[in-house]
Amino acid sequence: MKPREASLQQEPAPDLTARLTDGHHQALKLWLRMLACTMRVESSIRSRLRSGFGITLPRFDLMAQLERQPEGLRMGELSRRMMVTSGNVTGIVAELEREKLVARVHDPHDGRAFVVRLTPAGRRAFAGMAAVHEGWVTELFRDIPARDKAQMIALLDKMKRQLNDDKED
Amino acid sequence: MKPREASLQQEPAPDLTARLTDGHHQALKLWLRMLACTMRVESSIRSRLRSGFGITLPRFDLMAQLERQPEGLRMGELSRRMMVTSGNVTGIVAELEREKLVARVHDPHDGRAFVVRLTPAGRRAFAGMAAVHEGWVTELFRDIPARDKAQMIALLDKMKRQLNDDKED
Repeated sequence: MKPREASLQQEPAPDLTARLTDGHHQALKLWLRMLACTMRVESSIRSRLRSGFGITLPRFDLMAQLERQPEGLRMGELSRRMMVTSGNVTGIVAELEREKLVARVHDPHDGRAFVVRLTPAGRRAFAGMAAVHEGWVTELFRDIPARDKAQMIALLDKMKRQLNDDKED
Repeated sequence: MKPREASLQQEPAPDLTARLTDGHHQALKLWLRMLACTMRVESSIRSRLRSGFGITLPRFDLMAQLERQPEGLRMGELSRRMMVTSGNVTGIVAELEREKLVARVHDPHDGRAFVVRLTPAGRRAFAGMAAVHEGWVTELFRDIPARDKAQMIALLDKMKRQLNDDKED
């Protein structure tokens, strides 16, 4: 394995591309492509959230997670789902609590524990942003033919299952 | 547009999945799948880098960027390529400089400016990590058939070009 192949650049030099086309480096090539596309979309959404709503992407993600769970989520579960450290989650929750967009309440399944929930105001605030967010994603992907989109969704679904299996090894 | 669809969860509830299958929400569905797969792989690589080499993912990424540019890169260009703030880049460069893995030298094209380069020791250190990193990616994607990999690479290449075009609007 040559070290050059693992670099996370977005435009490989021609010689590198040529070498990556042999099957051997297919996994790395696929990963670098996924990462490049995801980073581009994410960076665009991040800056639109900032300029459009004055909020960070982790804050949007956290509200999105809560929106999916009307019963609320424990801090540890939130942190696991967002794949960020619990310190980050604590900070964002504290900020949203001050703005009365989330509330900490007793876990209905375990009175000694607490869960975080969106307040009605938080739910309304998120609803507005989520609709605009979907519009941005639709716009960013507007030049991708519907057939390609459907094909990628199917392939990514398959990949997600395989990555899950991998985790359970 | 319904707000629920914009949540970034990894396992949509059945009713949501059903609604997402109509063409209308295809872009969002594709984006959530891309994000979920990328986050899973990234999180696995992040924790392997930490336990295997005791380093962070941004540090690995920064060395990967420099490895691709033997002439060196200016701080602003490094930050742009890594899509992180220049404050983050400054911190990592300072750390790598203390360990003599990178050096700041005069830009050969503009003597008043500085570029960051890997030192020979940095190049050797990165080479070892990059080889192991490629092994991890190969392992993570081992259950994905070669045909699926090739198809995804082609679709992502197309997407990358379309996202670029979008940027130039």
